[in-house]
Amino acid sequence: MSATSWFQDVPNIPFEGPGSDNPLAFTHYNADEVVAGQTMREHLRFAVCYWHSMRGTGADPFGVGCRNMPWSEADNDMQAAHQAMDAMFELVTKLGVPFWCFHDRDIAPERNDLSETNAKLDEMIDHAERLQESTGVRLLWGTACLFAHPRYMGGAGTSPSVDVFAHAAAQVKKAIEVTHRLGGAGYVFWGGREGYDTLLNTDMRRDGEHLARLMHLAVEHKQALGFEGQFYIEPKPCEPSTHQYDYDAQSCHAFLLKHDLVDHFKLNIEANHATLAGHTFHHELDYAAGHDLLGSIDANRGDPLLGWDTDQFPTDLQDATMAMLVVLQSGGLTTGGLNFDAKLRRQSTDPVDLFYAHIGGMDTFARALKISAQIMADGRLDELKRLRYASWDSALGRSIEDGTASMVDLEAHALKANVQAIDSGRQELIENILNGYF
Amino acid sequence: MSATSWFQDVPNIPFEGPGSDNPLAFTHYNADEVVAGQTMREHLRFAVCYWHSMRGTGADPFGVGCRNMPWSEADNDMQAAHQAMDAMFELVTKLGVPFWCFHDRDIAPERNDLSETNAKLDEMIDHAERLQESTGVRLLWGTACLFAHPRYMGGAGTSPSVDVFAHAAAQVKKAIEVTHRLGGAGYVFWGGREGYDTLLNTDMRRDGEHLARLMHLAVEHKQALGFEGQFYIEPKPCEPSTHQYDYDAQSCHAFLLKHDLVDHFKLNIEANHATLAGHTFHHELDYAAGHDLLGSIDANRGDPLLGWDTDQFPTDLQDATMAMLVVLQSGGLTTGGLNFDAKLRRQSTDPVDLFYAHIGGMDTFARALKISAQIMADGRLDELKRLRYASWDSALGRSIEDGTASMVDLEAHALKANVQAIDSGRQELIENILNGYF
Amino acid sequence: MSATSWFQDVPNIPFEGPGSDNPLAFTHYNADEVVAGQTMREHLRFAVCYWHSMRGTGADPFGVGCRNMPWSEADNDMQAAHQAMDAMFELVTKLGVPFWCFHDRDIAPERNDLSETNAKLDEMIDHAERLQESTGVRLLWGTACLFAHPRYMGGAGTSPSVDVFAHAAAQVKKAIEVTHRLGGAGYVFWGGREGYDTLLNTDMRRDGEHLARLMHLAVEHKQALGFEGQFYIEPKPCEPSTHQYDYDAQSCHAFLLKHDLVDHFKLNIEANHATLAGHTFHHELDYAAGHDLLGSIDANRGDPLLGWDTDQFPTDLQDATMAMLVVLQSGGLTTGGLNFDAKLRRQSTDPVDLFYAHIGGMDTFARALKISAQIMADGRLDELKRLRYASWDSALGRSIEDGTASMVDLEAHALKANVQAIDSGRQELIENILNGYF
Amino acid sequence: MSATSWFQDVPNIPFEGPGSDNPLAFTHYNADEVVAGQTMREHLRFAVCYWHSMRGTGADPFGVGCRNMPWSEADNDMQAAHQAMDAMFELVTKLGVPFWCFHDRDIAPERNDLSETNAKLDEMIDHAERLQESTGVRLLWGTACLFAHPRYMGGAGTSPSVDVFAHAAAQVKKAIEVTHRLGGAGYVFWGGREGYDTLLNTDMRRDGEHLARLMHLAVEHKQALGFEGQFYIEPKPCEPSTHQYDYDAQSCHAFLLKHDLVDHFKLNIEANHATLAGHTFHHELDYAAGHDLLGSIDANRGDPLLGWDTDQFPTDLQDATMAMLVVLQSGGLTTGGLNFDAKLRRQSTDPVDLFYAHIGGMDTFARALKISAQIMADGRLDELKRLRYASWDSALGRSIEDGTASMVDLEAHALKANVQAIDSGRQELIENILNGYF
Repeated sequence: MSATSWFQDVPNIPFEGPGSDNPLAFTHYNADEVVAGQTMREHLRFAVCYWHSMRGTGADPFGVGCRNMPWSEADNDMQAAHQAMDAMFELVTKLGVPFWCFHDRDIAPERNDLSETNAKLDEMIDHAERLQESTGVRLLWGTACLFAHPRYMGGAGTSPSVDVFAHAAAQVKKAIEVTHRLGGAGYVFWGGREGYDTLLNTDMRRDGEHLARLMHLAVEHKQALGFEGQFYIEPKPCEPSTHQYDYDAQSCHAFLLKHDLVDHFKLNIEANHATLAGHTFHHELDYAAGHDLLGSIDANRGDPLLGWDTDQFPTDLQDATMAMLVVLQSGGLTTGGLNFDAKLRRQSTDPVDLFYAHIGGMDTFARALKISAQIMADGRLDELKRLRYASWDSALGRSIEDGTASMVDLEAHALKANVQAIDSGRQELIENILNGYF
Repeated sequence: MSATSWFQDVPNIPFEGPGSDNPLAFTHYNADEVVAGQTMREHLRFAVCYWHSMRGTGADPFGVGCRNMPWSEADNDMQAAHQAMDAMFELVTKLGVPFWCFHDRDIAPERNDLSETNAKLDEMIDHAERLQESTGVRLLWGTACLFAHPRYMGGAGTSPSVDVFAHAAAQVKKAIEVTHRLGGAGYVFWGGREGYDTLLNTDMRRDGEHLARLMHLAVEHKQALGFEGQFYIEPKPCEPSTHQYDYDAQSCHAFLLKHDLVDHFKLNIEANHATLAGHTFHHELDYAAGHDLLGSIDANRGDPLLGWDTDQFPTDLQDATMAMLVVLQSGGLTTGGLNFDAKLRRQSTDPVDLFYAHIGGMDTFARALKISAQIMADGRLDELKRLRYASWDSALGRSIEDGTASMVDLEAHALKANVQAIDSGRQELIENILNGYF
Repeated sequence: MSATSWFQDVPNIPFEGPGSDNPLAFTHYNADEVVAGQTMREHLRFAVCYWHSMRGTGADPFGVGCRNMPWSEADNDMQAAHQAMDAMFELVTKLGVPFWCFHDRDIAPERNDLSETNAKLDEMIDHAERLQESTGVRLLWGTACLFAHPRYMGGAGTSPSVDVFAHAAAQVKKAIEVTHRLGGAGYVFWGGREGYDTLLNTDMRRDGEHLARLMHLAVEHKQALGFEGQFYIEPKPCEPSTHQYDYDAQSCHAFLLKHDLVDHFKLNIEANHATLAGHTFHHELDYAAGHDLLGSIDANRGDPLLGWDTDQFPTDLQDATMAMLVVLQSGGLTTGGLNFDAKLRRQSTDPVDLFYAHIGGMDTFARALKISAQIMADGRLDELKRLRYASWDSALGRSIEDGTASMVDLEAHALKANVQAIDSGRQELIENILNGYF
Repeated sequence: MSATSWFQDVPNIPFEGPGSDNPLAFTHYNADEVVAGQTMREHLRFAVCYWHSMRGTGADPFGVGCRNMPWSEADNDMQAAHQAMDAMFELVTKLGVPFWCFHDRDIAPERNDLSETNAKLDEMIDHAERLQESTGVRLLWGTACLFAHPRYMGGAGTSPSVDVFAHAAAQVKKAIEVTHRLGGAGYVFWGGREGYDTLLNTDMRRDGEHLARLMHLAVEHKQALGFEGQFYIEPKPCEPSTHQYDYDAQSCHAFLLKHDLVDHFKLNIEANHATLAGHTFHHELDYAAGHDLLGSIDANRGDPLLGWDTDQFPTDLQDATMAMLVVLQSGGLTTGGLNFDAKLRRQSTDPVDLFYAHIGGMDTFARALKISAQIMADGRLDELKRLRYASWDSALGRSIEDGTASMVDLEAHALKANVQAIDSGRQELIENILNGYF
């Protein structure tokens, strides 16, 4: 890390416990505290994202940026890139976060010539390598930005232009290579503009074939490189496109099954993308976990009354608890982590606001971890669910599940049983029990 | 048909053409008129649905029914059932509609004992058989009502109770049998309450396994019977459940692929279910058609500003045109049809309103058929799409599509090409051209 | 109260405190505990609603009821009405809730003749009067059901039929009279079907005039009677109508101002209606409080991902806390209360589920009361808000607020000041502080 | 206009009629054609908006602009400003549009010093004055941009900073002055960031007082200037703020009534803002017209499945027809017009796309005008509405409307009439009749 500090007034964030009213201390996140057999650090695997935290300015469709990032003031864009990376590692280190995430174009500027762009990227990867080594911070995942440049206005893998597809492939190739070089635990495909604005100029079926082809090429390249990181697809239903092809977890599952890619990918589930798709965060995680697709998590929050990706920092304790419960019950995150794909509100204009925001998110998930471990240990909720499904553990239930019961058997049973009702689902009781944990 | 007429004041609905202002005449639907090589009757394959048209009363969660259906006034429920069926065949015949659709419990009442219920159903099937023969009206598809009875409050194939699963299986078995007996062209699975109200008492993965098991049992029974009708799943994202497992076309595709059912099912796409899932009707049809899953259509309309299934009669000409364009381009409906899964507004209280409603829907789709045939014949929209994707028909494009281009080849191309932009997508021009057809 | 118990297995619900895992005990609601100068009973003024709790069956548009209410099994509807009322007072008493609420048609059946209907209502009012006296339970508010009967399918005060308007007026007259007789603290107007399904058959301006006329008639009758209870309008944006005239708090405000009714009405704010209108519960309460319109509260919860009124029991602690904060800061509820306009989930089929549900709601609001009192006592959030607006307390700020600063003065100031930025809004910090209270 | 042409390949757009397939010709807009007593030009009063058409680049939150506007290539920002204005007048003239609209900061760049900014604005106003004179194009309305600069991140009239309020007042003062100088027919207040991101740092009541104060200052300054243009408020429910105070037409009505501003303002209704607020465009126009608030129209279109302001060009014929029907029935636009507050899709990258887009919008509204005139002339829809409300024209109806009928009178009538039902609302028939006009 450079000698200059970009957050001079901010110390390393200490854990002070629930009683503290120091806004620059953790009240729940205690990295070395053991919960359910592992430290919080190991369970939660937090990551800071480069794009929002280092590159975000608060600009929106109705106004220019209003956050002055001191690391952006520089004589040229490469100096600014170095400063931003230094600032990122300082932020991550002071927060005690173990991981970071980036897009290729976040960390190094783009030139008109791809070779030159790649050279600038390599320069910044060298810098990142040094900073990783000196700080011990690791790379959760890398990715390529295939949506910001005008060439990608009609998609990347689904562009109507074959030149753009090739450009995207070259960019993915390079991004996998540098992720591999930095020891990344994974690599994410977020289909920024893979979708359409109008079906009237779109061949949806052909686009799907092209996108699958890009994924297969990436798998082949990964294998050629010997990169063992996990590949993820990140579902999102819309925005910026009117329809995004990776709509939600189950849609991505269809795509992976259809194109014989299901063994090579898991999902990176984002809370705000879940709600935009009409699902709870809990639902998307549970679907993924139930189909062996839960890979990593973009920990943020949307506003359920707004129809765009607000990417707020996660502060909803119940949502976070449901998420951690799914994570714990499915054996924990392995290659993945909790990446704060979250941005400061436009009116949060000070660098220190980055600290408040991450502290809030980390404390929320730390508390959620402790509560979900307690819920699992207590077993009251699990027991109610087990009782509700108990009849499936009968001989009849087993004969259905193992495929031995025939339609005729079942009809015979039904004619005799004439079932008229089932037991109360007890939703209110269950919600009360859950509330008792908070 | 019985001697009694239930719609005495309504004649057989004639075609009078666009100039007519007779509200009981067609202005566009001319059954024998040939469009693109087939009659309108053959293309459109309209069906009247039994549930809304015969059983609907206008009741909603805030009030009791307010439509007096004369056929419901009877000494007992079986007399009412006969009368309703007579009225349905009169309605269908006077409209000149070739098909009908029903749930088992629409046409015959349920008793506490399943054997007796089945006997009452058989009696009504006998009656239907006679009416089909005398009128020439055919059955588009049958289905079982697995959601209205309290036993199904927690689902049918996904019930937590194995007794309820068995009851559902018995009901499906019987419903397939009577559909087969009536010569039905298909059979629909709409997962009325296959879903959950809260994940806290739900095992989503296990529910999926159970639902797939029910589907496999149905496939086996179909084969045992020799029933050659098409099986359909009908996607819907929510309502009555908080989450319905058959969320949308692509979700159903995932389910069918995952559970090795994709060769046995197509989809029944409903316009209102599409919009509830955040998609256009056009999108759902195009997804289905592009993956060989387009089976049949529930032709209705939702209110995009309301969050429940309003099931209005389809009167949006542009939506219907996009639908018919997908249908024509994918080779037309074969086993499926356009079923009016639509209900009169609560304030439409006269039997004659049923005629106005169906006439409006039929004319809308007849006009949409003519326009979509014209769009195809003109080829202007297709040509713009073809030009947009033209680069994919180059040598490079073909090498990507056929899998011979490697990541290294593509990178080499990209480094040389340095593509910066692509052509205008021309959405406004295309929308103007489309508007010119209306 | 009658000798028969309808909830024999349920005792009076005791307060056992946060440590208790007795599902039939309160963990937070301790009626006599003093918080911020008043008992919880006085602050919260809970009410049980008759319609959902006594009359709800779990029926929905896709299925019949599945909850067997023992009090509904009777030889005739008047016996059932007596039993239901006995059961209601038993429920209320065992919960220790001080108030109840009802529609005229909840408590007594309707006959074809209005005189006879009124007589049956009077009989039940006699019964209610006896039960109120013997239990000490009071009436929070009464209302007339102007939406369930077919005559009201096109609205009541906004019906296109003048006969229906007259019927509605007669029903309101009687409902105010019986509310007065029972000592009701208020009277609610929820415009069940005051709105439209399609503008094509609607005269929105004229409907508004008619609705205002009904309100004025009610005000005159209230004054003639000497009834001193508070009148409330309850906003709702849609459902059952496509558009409801009482869309939200601010829309109702416009209506009251436009028609010179603002001195005679306050609002009854419902959480689920707020979210259907695109607002938070907090927003609607704050708007009402800020314009002296906060009267009473329908305490429930919607599902932000669903587009209909789910009327779930309130269990969201943060929402409830924001609500109680507005209530406390605006001086507390006086005539109004917290009415549980909430219904059991369809799958909650046992009478005891009514107790779980109310306990959950009461504990949530009790906890919210304690937290909001603590937030006010601490003053940290208030202080941050005060600092944010501090410049308005300067001389310039005061000159603008009191109207003495002119446009020219302000321009002169602006030309000199050339303000370029303002302080951070600190949203993340504030959210962290808020989370610290939970 | 300067000698340089910015759209060299585009001729003046001719009217060629419905048969034409020239994409650069009108098929319906024939400026001098008389419909219902006025020319199309006079009825429709189209305006081109400066911000989207001249300043839009296609940038969105996920990518930079991709439309190269040749007029933006310049040695300095003032040269670019001149070029853009020249191009705007060329566009307007070639389209044959009679009006334009602008924000102060669209047409001239901002400097750090307000005096200098005002000087640059004056220079561009001089240029606009010359171009207006030479082309005959007039100004529909002007406005001030109070949302793009960072100083406005917390609002303008509702900023927590009194300095920002003063700056906003100064900017409004100047913008009214230059609008007056250019002979503008009106002046718009769109409350870009007048609202909040979180209630936790917001005093909603005090913000309302401040906003009203700004409006009163503007009214006073208008009177001092002798400016006779109409003031408009433009409702929008959210975006960029989480909640915008000018939520919808009825909310604005409440604000105007509450703060004694209703005599000085009308509304500028935008289609996309209507749907974001949960209303149809038709509803917002009808509410405004019914309360003498319909002033001007922002003619665009949203995507009902997306939750942000897509600002598409209006191509929905039925929506446009309902709009023109309200306009015609309320006596036509006087000071207001149809301003295309609409932007090209991001993928529409050619200057000629601006022509396609405006042609599509103009043809849609021209056709809508002709159809709505025909609907009014036919009178069938009006007659059905009249019949539906006919009972209100009876003696009883009149006695209610004029306030002479008392509650006792109405009860007496109701006891005698015992009304049980009303006539069918005929929604399906009415929708069929409407469809017959298209």
